[in-house]
Amino acid sequence: MLTMQDALARLTTYWTDQGALVVQPMNTEVGAGTLNPATFLRVLGPEPWKVVYVEPSVRPDDSRYGENPNRLQTHTQLQVILKPDPGNPQELYLGSLEALGIDVAAHDVRFVEDNWASPALGAWGLGWEVWLDGLEITQFTYFQQAGGLNLDPVSVEITYGIERIIMALQEKTHFKEIEYAPGVSYGEVFGQAEYEMSRYYLDDADIEANRRLLELYAGEAQRMIDAGLPVPAHSYVLKSSQAFNVLDARGAVSTAERAAEFGRMRRLAGEVAKLWVGRRTELDHPLGVVSALDHARPAAAAQTSDDERTLVFEIGTEELPPAELRSARQQMLRLVTEGLAATRLAHGAPRIFGTPRRLIAVVPAVAAREDDHVRTVKGPKTQAAYGADGTPTKALEGFVRGQGATLGEVSTEELNGVPHVVLKTHEAGRAAPDVLAAVLAQVVTGLRAAKNMRWNDPKLAFSRPIRWLTALWGDDVVPVTVSTLAADRETRLLRTAAQPVVAIESAETFVETLGVNGIVADHEDRRELIVIGAQDLVYPDGRIDVTGEAALIDQITDLVEQPLPLLGTFDEAYLTLPDAVLTTVMRKHQRYLPVRDADGGLLPMFVTVANGPVDVELVRAGNEAVLRARYEDAAFFYRADLSTPLADMRARLARLTFTDKLGSMADRADRIAALARSLAARLGLESPVLDRAAALVKFDLGSQLVTEMTSLAGVMARDYALHAGEDRPVAQAVYEAELPRNTGDDLPRSVAGALLSLADRLDLVAGLAATVGLPTGSSDPFAVRRAFLGLIAVHRATPALAGLDLSEALALATQPVPVPAEVLQACSEFLAKRLEQVLVEEGQPVDRVRAVLPHHARPAVVDSLLASLATAVDDPGFRAVASAIQRARRIVPAGTPAGYDAAVLKEPAELALHAAIPADTGFSDLSSFVARTQPLVAPVGRFFDEVFVMADDPVLRAARLGLLATIRDLGEGLLDWSHLRL
Amino acid sequence: MLTMQDALARLTTYWTDQGALVVQPMNTEVGAGTLNPATFLRVLGPEPWKVVYVEPSVRPDDSRYGENPNRLQTHTQLQVILKPDPGNPQELYLGSLEALGIDVAAHDVRFVEDNWASPALGAWGLGWEVWLDGLEITQFTYFQQAGGLNLDPVSVEITYGIERIIMALQEKTHFKEIEYAPGVSYGEVFGQAEYEMSRYYLDDADIEANRRLLELYAGEAQRMIDAGLPVPAHSYVLKSSQAFNVLDARGAVSTAERAAEFGRMRRLAGEVAKLWVGRRTELDHPLGVVSALDHARPAAAAQTSDDERTLVFEIGTEELPPAELRSARQQMLRLVTEGLAATRLAHGAPRIFGTPRRLIAVVPAVAAREDDHVRTVKGPKTQAAYGADGTPTKALEGFVRGQGATLGEVSTEELNGVPHVVLKTHEAGRAAPDVLAAVLAQVVTGLRAAKNMRWNDPKLAFSRPIRWLTALWGDDVVPVTVSTLAADRETRLLRTAAQPVVAIESAETFVETLGVNGIVADHEDRRELIVIGAQDLVYPDGRIDVTGEAALIDQITDLVEQPLPLLGTFDEAYLTLPDAVLTTVMRKHQRYLPVRDADGGLLPMFVTVANGPVDVELVRAGNEAVLRARYEDAAFFYRADLSTPLADMRARLARLTFTDKLGSMADRADRIAALARSLAARLGLESPVLDRAAALVKFDLGSQLVTEMTSLAGVMARDYALHAGEDRPVAQAVYEAELPRNTGDDLPRSVAGALLSLADRLDLVAGLAATVGLPTGSSDPFAVRRAFLGLIAVHRATPALAGLDLSEALALATQPVPVPAEVLQACSEFLAKRLEQVLVEEGQPVDRVRAVLPHHARPAVVDSLLASLATAVDDPGFRAVASAIQRARRIVPAGTPAGYDAAVLKEPAELALHAAIPADTGFSDLSSFVARTQPLVAPVGRFFDEVFVMADDPVLRAARLGLLATIRDLGEGLLDWSHLRL
Repeated sequence: MLTMQDALARLTTYWTDQGALVVQPMNTEVGAGTLNPATFLRVLGPEPWKVVYVEPSVRPDDSRYGENPNRLQTHTQLQVILKPDPGNPQELYLGSLEALGIDVAAHDVRFVEDNWASPALGAWGLGWEVWLDGLEITQFTYFQQAGGLNLDPVSVEITYGIERIIMALQEKTHFKEIEYAPGVSYGEVFGQAEYEMSRYYLDDADIEANRRLLELYAGEAQRMIDAGLPVPAHSYVLKSSQAFNVLDARGAVSTAERAAEFGRMRRLAGEVAKLWVGRRTELDHPLGVVSALDHARPAAAAQTSDDERTLVFEIGTEELPPAELRSARQQMLRLVTEGLAATRLAHGAPRIFGTPRRLIAVVPAVAAREDDHVRTVKGPKTQAAYGADGTPTKALEGFVRGQGATLGEVSTEELNGVPHVVLKTHEAGRAAPDVLAAVLAQVVTGLRAAKNMRWNDPKLAFSRPIRWLTALWGDDVVPVTVSTLAADRETRLLRTAAQPVVAIESAETFVETLGVNGIVADHEDRRELIVIGAQDLVYPDGRIDVTGEAALIDQITDLVEQPLPLLGTFDEAYLTLPDAVLTTVMRKHQRYLPVRDADGGLLPMFVTVANGPVDVELVRAGNEAVLRARYEDAAFFYRADLSTPLADMRARLARLTFTDKLGSMADRADRIAALARSLAARLGLESPVLDRAAALVKFDLGSQLVTEMTSLAGVMARDYALHAGEDRPVAQAVYEAELPRNTGDDLPRSVAGALLSLADRLDLVAGLAATVGLPTGSSDPFAVRRAFLGLIAVHRATPALAGLDLSEALALATQPVPVPAEVLQACSEFLAKRLEQVLVEEGQPVDRVRAVLPHHARPAVVDSLLASLATAVDDPGFRAVASAIQRARRIVPAGTPAGYDAAVLKEPAELALHAAIPADTGFSDLSSFVARTQPLVAPVGRFFDEVFVMADDPVLRAARLGLLATIRDLGEGLLDWSHLRL
Repeated sequence: MLTMQDALARLTTYWTDQGALVVQPMNTEVGAGTLNPATFLRVLGPEPWKVVYVEPSVRPDDSRYGENPNRLQTHTQLQVILKPDPGNPQELYLGSLEALGIDVAAHDVRFVEDNWASPALGAWGLGWEVWLDGLEITQFTYFQQAGGLNLDPVSVEITYGIERIIMALQEKTHFKEIEYAPGVSYGEVFGQAEYEMSRYYLDDADIEANRRLLELYAGEAQRMIDAGLPVPAHSYVLKSSQAFNVLDARGAVSTAERAAEFGRMRRLAGEVAKLWVGRRTELDHPLGVVSALDHARPAAAAQTSDDERTLVFEIGTEELPPAELRSARQQMLRLVTEGLAATRLAHGAPRIFGTPRRLIAVVPAVAAREDDHVRTVKGPKTQAAYGADGTPTKALEGFVRGQGATLGEVSTEELNGVPHVVLKTHEAGRAAPDVLAAVLAQVVTGLRAAKNMRWNDPKLAFSRPIRWLTALWGDDVVPVTVSTLAADRETRLLRTAAQPVVAIESAETFVETLGVNGIVADHEDRRELIVIGAQDLVYPDGRIDVTGEAALIDQITDLVEQPLPLLGTFDEAYLTLPDAVLTTVMRKHQRYLPVRDADGGLLPMFVTVANGPVDVELVRAGNEAVLRARYEDAAFFYRADLSTPLADMRARLARLTFTDKLGSMADRADRIAALARSLAARLGLESPVLDRAAALVKFDLGSQLVTEMTSLAGVMARDYALHAGEDRPVAQAVYEAELPRNTGDDLPRSVAGALLSLADRLDLVAGLAATVGLPTGSSDPFAVRRAFLGLIAVHRATPALAGLDLSEALALATQPVPVPAEVLQACSEFLAKRLEQVLVEEGQPVDRVRAVLPHHARPAVVDSLLASLATAVDDPGFRAVASAIQRARRIVPAGTPAGYDAAVLKEPAELALHAAIPADTGFSDLSSFVARTQPLVAPVGRFFDEVFVMADDPVLRAARLGLLATIRDLGEGLLDWSHLRL
């Protein structure tokens, strides 16, 4: 059996064999290997650095007295930094797993999107968590920034979680059972320390002492920065971070302190980074300077066919996140289409395929050459080109010289009816490979992701590194070069394939060659393989909810190149955990498909989709072990939560920051409760259920399970409230306060739940609008858009609240910061926009939507108005009145008051109209409007037919305009009549 | 080339192959691997523990900005703990060197006494520093105590100094040049940190902040102890230790603080240790419990000879310290002699041999059996044994029964003239092997060292572990068993021999077999090989001062088993360093013999003595490199010191503690200066030279060189003072203040030097006598005895001070603590004892010494008295007077006053005596006494011949006694006449 200490030794040896240095763990407590100066400082600046080291990583908050099987206050990281990116870090990494004796071809090893950021360090990077049969064993990150500085060159950081890897390899279910060394268990060696340090961090650390330590450390860090000494300064930044973590684990950090401390740490880390870079420059970079890679040379273009042939272009990447893959496919289609359109190459319709590791464009029937072409260059007017004697003027001579032509080559041509001198040149169409090379290069550089990163390429940026290009037109390589990349006819298969690189005969055989090698390039094909495969696996007892899980299936489809669905099972005993817990773990954490029986009840099984021809039994067993550990964890938290009074959980909210300026989650829950009760009071909807639910709202954010799985907020609240003996309506209302969690989610059914839900969202919207502003563009970290949509959905779904004006309600959502009137106004407008969008997406005609939008603050009212409007527009009387109103609006100058001297009127048609105008022109709803304006239908038509409004007599004209203004104002406030298309 | 990181990996692999665990360095700064809980806590208690780890060891005081080639604020230790002692840790250790590619047979690998103690941790152990060709590369310690607790089982601690080893193997002269990893130097990787951390520790650390850190750490340590959590408590003890070290490096620790801090740390460490032991017991010792080794079974005794044969008994040890080896040889001789004497085995005279690894007794002509023997047991008196009728009495029956005999076996015998019943039993002499086995076992258990240790043997204790016994009588094994050891016929040769264990044919061939295999068992033989070898090597240009270096040669002789003198050279440039620096390094640090030319000038060469048939060139080169590094170091310090003003060095004394209660060295230097000036004033010996020298005295203790080589104190003072432009007499006086440094050393030649020397020693004596007491037994850590001897020597050598009464002077040596009169008295008596001893050892007759001893406070006076006395005793007149005085002392009752009524006298003889008594009986010296008592010679003889003192007439008797009392008191205070033997 591979012991833990052997594993550390083997990995160290493997990486030193790859040229890495070995350094020692940091000699002050750190939360992660990243904090060791061998990472944090060394990734800065231009010097190369390749290092491997062990880092016992201390996380006071993870203290569990050694009782939790998977969580330790000190766990062991093995950290590797490769600077610069060697170009094949994933392959090197897989080699390291093999060095541990892991058969990477038999196991399912996957790179699953995971981006890393440490705001306190001013650091971030993109990359993956690496899964071994569903178990996260490594963090793999391309470091982009540290200490607020952009990194150039980029470093690859590989962080192995050793205990996890070893537990999997040794098939242990508790970290204490790990065979640390031959015959000696982890628990025997480290068990006591794990318990005692947990005691220190959770119970016994002196808060005042640690507060003072924090200040002293930060002070020394600052002094060392002032002294220009980044190394000791960094050490003190680390110490202050540890002191802060101790205070945090002891529950002694207030919201204000946390914000202040993160700010200070970010500032200190940034200054340390700058100092380090400066010092290394002064020292003239003792380790040398990384030189950028050379640009690729294009292959010599060769064209072996004169017929039209297929074009295939593959951009080979490291594993793209599913969302980025979807977007990239669309971009590629646009770029290829536009690129080809700008050429004169005849071609068929492009098709785009994509897997996590490749984007493929296939364009059939691409001509061998562009069509030939005559280019006409306009010269001077003929009149100005020749003198009276027919000799060329200076103007003509200048033109000819400028074009590098001779006088003999020009001719004359009538352009826009005026004769001009022109120069016509015949341009032969370029060969397809040459034309395509330029087009395809721009496809590569044109790709953009939502989050872009850099790697070892000096020019490119994308979601993940682009590692190869394959470009063929028929049998010929298209000589595309982009920065360091040059296309050829080779593509890559699965990394674990016997022959991971193959040459492609021709563009026509490309997709087929991939397919023969197992790679399913088309998303839809893969999806079908997964769905059918999964259904087959669970037949006949179980079923997969293909519709309900559509988003998950789409995601899974874009996580694999060669899908292999596998059925796994878990112990029935876990079915006693709440359904949501079980499925959340499966879906969110593991991307497993839940399996249900005919009644919708969960079965103790799951479907996972491996990538490639793995050893099925091995991968199944691995995934089952992972799920077991996760469920064991969840069960541990669940039991712990059930034994915690609700009030204790609620009290923990004081330790959770909402935002710097908006206080803790406890503050927020207090505000929600107060607002919900105040809205209820306005509406006469007070109830004991609401009072109790308001007191509890969001308490489950203080539970261990929701801390681990935030998406279960509300669900667990209901569960714990019921277990704690709360009334069912109270529990339901606390749950409903969180609804809707996303578009299409359930909505509150109780008034109390709806009030809390609205209050929650109103509080969020008001606070964030007043502090960080409303979202613009795609960035919306606090999901403010979703909150607005929630407000709309809840209002529409709750008849009892139809009278509530959301804009007024928003003004009641008192915040710890002032919320100016213009912010409230902006919110109201934002709400209107969202409502318009929702309604239009629901299929409502835009004109009607806009007509009712003045009522956006009461979406339920909007709904009923729209319903009435749908009937009314078929009513000829309504249409006549409405169109009269619109006509009146067009005719009557702005500012004309709705009143007139009836005595001035004289024409029968205008007198008839005057007579038909109802005494009361205020309408509370559209049906009464329709009913009461019925008498106007005929007179209004006659008026427009017979009366000339703009009479010469000013008095008469004024009276007629006033009459029309009265018509104009009919139904004012009911609809925005101008938008209605009749 | 073996890189540093490879070396760490190889050692780690080697020790894990031996079953060791690997753990990580401590995640808080530590000064040594010993502080890591994997050592400090794990050596406690009964659990087994075998571990290897790297420990970057932080010593703020060693900060040198990376400039010193051999000194770093952070150096790398590789630490191994073997618990229990595996029985062959030295052999395992040699294996680890081979794992590094070191050919231990070609190199000179030596275990040189080095004992380790950390008072702050309540820890100590005995062991060695391991030398590789003269370079200390490893500390090897048998841990005896930690946290004040005795360790059972004992742990072996092996600490490799990695930078040193690598510098030697890579032949680098500066640590920055070490090839740390392929193509990457140590300086490139760690140079900046070395500089910056040096800056922090020496210049920039905030003193107040670190003081607060120290207090906070100690506070948390105490809180964790109170909470019963030894692991976090230990961590905080370490942090407090580091904070203290930072303060110390910043020069911010006062004497009182240092004492207090060491006390606190010792207390905390002790409590942590106790807690840990308790917790492990509560946890039922998760790693199990070490079981004690079984007792050895004796071999079956076989005797194959009836003739007398040689006995040889070898006790095989690990390397004994030279002093312990000398003592052990003597003990062994006594134990063997006494042991054999208690048997009835005929035998020749024992001879004892010894090398560092063996003690050998050879006894020729040991009989095959004890002589037979008749044992007589005394019974009742015959008279009481038989009744009148001759029947046995109860008494006789009881005796017979008690002896298990029958009535027929008893006889009668006259004992002390009284007839007794006796029982005579004939006892056959036991066979030699049986008899010898018991005797020799007691030899082993009887050995005692000045410092004894324990190892894996449950019963034995000695200077170093005893690992084997070889015992042969003729051809036969003597079946000695002692605890776990059983003797056999095998002995061990050099560990690096091709066949390290050989069987011995017979006792007669034992020493020869050793010799054939190169081992020279006899000290004198080895010494001769060394002396002759060394002289040959340096002939004809150089010479070894065999007399002057006798002690060193003796020591070297007991450091090797197979001496191989080698000649090495060093760069002539180093000859510019002071002679004392060069020779101190050679003798004290390296045990090299200096080589001088005919004029006594140092030559740039040395002789070292290797052990065994090493590769001469390799070992020479290694030793030369070591010496070069040491000289480079010394030159570095010397240059630094020369550029430091004397006042700055003097100011540093405030940072050196003398003792807790007696203040810093600066305090002590101040006292010495004041006392010297005050003595000078009393004697009218004031001078500007003295004033200046007093201001400087001991300043060189603040120099870097003397900090490194304390034995150079004084020598360097003179050197630095002259370089600083002080007058030569001042420089000389500061030097002389340190004289004599040991018995036979030079003495001050100037009065100023002598005054300072006396003041130094008076201060030491007064302070220590008042605080820790005068030395008793062999323990004398502050060398108080030597100080007294110095007082005597200086006084005797300085005529100008002859009038100074040392006891009075002592009373002037004001201390920060009170010095009671009885302490002064005790010092005076101690002085007298030392003086008596010195004079007797110089060959003075004891009687005369004792006679002059009343003047011990003025040893110069004693000298002149003794000189006079030596002449006087040949003078019949003096003898007559002296014997009269003695006779008078015998006759005159105590308390009789020296006065009489001369008128009462009547006998002519008494009147003549009366007339001859000189008017003035005070004598300032012996010659005036002799001269002025000359007239008494005849009258006093006549008085005793003719006068009957004890006359019946009380008046007359009183007068005669008074007259005699006057004689008695002649020369009173001049000599203690009673001791004089005439």
